[in-house]
Amino acid sequence: METIYIQEVVTRDGLQMEDQFVPTEEKIDLINRLSAAGVDKIEATSFVSPKAIPNLRDAEDVMLGIDRKPDITYTALIPNVKGAERAAACKVDEVNLVVSASESHNQKNVRKSVDESFSGFTDITRFLAGTGIRINGSLATSFGCPFEGTIAENRVLGLIDKYLELGADGITLADTTGMATPKQVFQLCGKVLDHWPDLPLTLHFHNTRGMGLANVVEGIRAGVTRFDASLGGLGGCPFAPGATGNICTEDLVHMLIFMGYHVKTDFDQLIATAKHLETILGHDVPGQVIKAGKITDLHPV
Amino acid sequence: METIYIQEVVTRDGLQMEDQFVPTEEKIDLINRLSAAGVDKIEATSFVSPKAIPNLRDAEDVMLGIDRKPDITYTALIPNVKGAERAAACKVDEVNLVVSASESHNQKNVRKSVDESFSGFTDITRFLAGTGIRINGSLATSFGCPFEGTIAENRVLGLIDKYLELGADGITLADTTGMATPKQVFQLCGKVLDHWPDLPLTLHFHNTRGMGLANVVEGIRAGVTRFDASLGGLGGCPFAPGATGNICTEDLVHMLIFMGYHVKTDFDQLIATAKHLETILGHDVPGQVIKAGKITDLHPV
Repeated sequence: METIYIQEVVTRDGLQMEDQFVPTEEKIDLINRLSAAGVDKIEATSFVSPKAIPNLRDAEDVMLGIDRKPDITYTALIPNVKGAERAAACKVDEVNLVVSASESHNQKNVRKSVDESFSGFTDITRFLAGTGIRINGSLATSFGCPFEGTIAENRVLGLIDKYLELGADGITLADTTGMATPKQVFQLCGKVLDHWPDLPLTLHFHNTRGMGLANVVEGIRAGVTRFDASLGGLGGCPFAPGATGNICTEDLVHMLIFMGYHVKTDFDQLIATAKHLETILGHDVPGQVIKAGKITDLHPV
Repeated sequence: METIYIQEVVTRDGLQMEDQFVPTEEKIDLINRLSAAGVDKIEATSFVSPKAIPNLRDAEDVMLGIDRKPDITYTALIPNVKGAERAAACKVDEVNLVVSASESHNQKNVRKSVDESFSGFTDITRFLAGTGIRINGSLATSFGCPFEGTIAENRVLGLIDKYLELGADGITLADTTGMATPKQVFQLCGKVLDHWPDLPLTLHFHNTRGMGLANVVEGIRAGVTRFDASLGGLGGCPFAPGATGNICTEDLVHMLIFMGYHVKTDFDQLIATAKHLETILGHDVPGQVIKAGKITDLHPV
C-alpha cells in the first residue's frame, strides 16, 4: 500500500482568514488533537508581523505551548530573518518560505519582486545554517495567478531550481486561488518529478472551483505523495467571497483511505476534531464528509 | 479534442428534492434556457405518480410546453407502463428506467425486488416497441448502497446484461448517495467498457463526499464520455441532511473546458442560467464556480 502524507494547515491557512481571533489555548488544544489524530506535518502558525495578521499574533505562545510528537514535523511560515529568529527560538522543526510564481501576486502579497523575495531568503538560509531546522520553499500561484492568469511551466521549474540552490529541503507548489485543473496538475508535477525524482514535493490545493480532490488524484498519479489540507476545509480566497478554501483534511483522508492508500491519520479522531473546530468557531465548516458520514456508515433499511 | 457529453438532470433530480413546487412556467423556461445553452441531453421530468413526487405533478405540461431542439435528447424517468404511456403521449425522445443494483435499496425505493422491476421493464419495452422512443437503463447504487454497502462488480455487469437483453439503448451507472471513489470508478467502468466497448455509458455522480469531479476525471480516463449533472449542484441525499447533491453542471463544464475537452455547452449561458435558478428557488445553490468565477476571470492588481 502506497503511503500518502497528510500535512495540516488549518491553524495557519485556516485561522488567519477567520473573522474572529481564536484564543491561544484553543489553538494549542486543536493542534494537540491533530497530533493525536496522527497527521504527518502541522503548519502550526506564522511568524509574521502581528499587525499584518492579527489572528496569528500568538505565534510564540502556540508553538511553545503545544505537545510535540517526535514523528510529526511542526512547521511555521516565516517571511524574513526576524521571523526565522522567532521560529528558531521556538525550536520549530521546519520553516516554510513563500514567494509567488507570479510577479504581480508577489508584489500584492509581500510588496516585493520575486528577486527581492529570494534575496531575503538568502539571509534566512544563512541565519538558519547549522541550526538543524529544515527549510521548505513554497511557490504560491504555481498553477495560475488571479492577476496574470497562466504561469509558464518553465517559470515554475526555474523557481524550484532557485529554491534548491538556496538549500531548500522540500518544495510546495501552491494553487493559491484554486485555478489548477487535474490535467495541468498531472503535467506540471510529472515535469517537476522528471527533473528532480527524489524531491520531497508537496501540493497545496484550494477547492475554490470544486476541483480540489480531482487535483489530488492526478497529483498522486504523477507521483506526488504529500498534500496540504485544512481541517473542515477552512480557509478561503479574498477574491471569491463565499467560495470554499483549502481542500478539506477529513474529506481528503476519507477519499484516500477508501481508494486503498495508507494514511497515518485516524479518520474518526480527525472527524471528531473537525466537529470540535465547529464548536470553537461557532459556525459550520465547508467539509462534506462531516455532514454525510463515511461511505461505510450504513443506514438501517 | 475529445468530446464530452453533458446531460442535465436539474428539473428532475434537482427539483424533486426542493421544499417548494416550482411553477410549471418556470420549469419550462429553465429547460428552454438549458436548451439554448446547448447541453446534449435533458432529463426534463418524471412520469411518476403525482402523489409520490408532488413537485413533478406537471410532467405533461412541462414536456409539452418546452421548445425542443433537434440536437438535444429530451428524456424522462418512467417507473411503469402507465408512465411510458404518458411519456409517449408527450413524444419524449427517450425514457429512463431505474432499478437499484442493491435489493434493499430497490425495495426501499420502489417496493419491488430487482427481478420484479425487470419484469415490469419487459412490459414497458413491449409497449414502446416500434415507437422510436429510445430506452436508457439506469442502475442506482451501482457504486455502493447506503443499506448494504459494497455492490459486487459482477452484479453490476449482470444487471447491465439484463438491461441490454431487454433492448436498452444506453446504460447509466448512478452513484445515488455519493459512495463512489475515483479508483472504483476507473476499475468498474474499465470492466464495463471491456465487455461492451460500444455501449453508450453514462455516469451519474453525486458530490455527497466531495469526490464528484474526481470521479468524472477517472471515468473519462476509463473511456466514459457521458455525464449527468445538475445545474447549481441541486439535488441531495435523504440520508445526509446538508450534504450536497448531484455534481454541479457548471462546475463540471468549467473543469472540462479548462482541461481541454470539447463540450457543446456555452459556459457563460450556463452560469447565467444557474444564477437564474437561484432567483427561481430563492436560495443559493451549492455550485462553486458561480461564487468564484471561472479561472480566466482575472482581477485588477
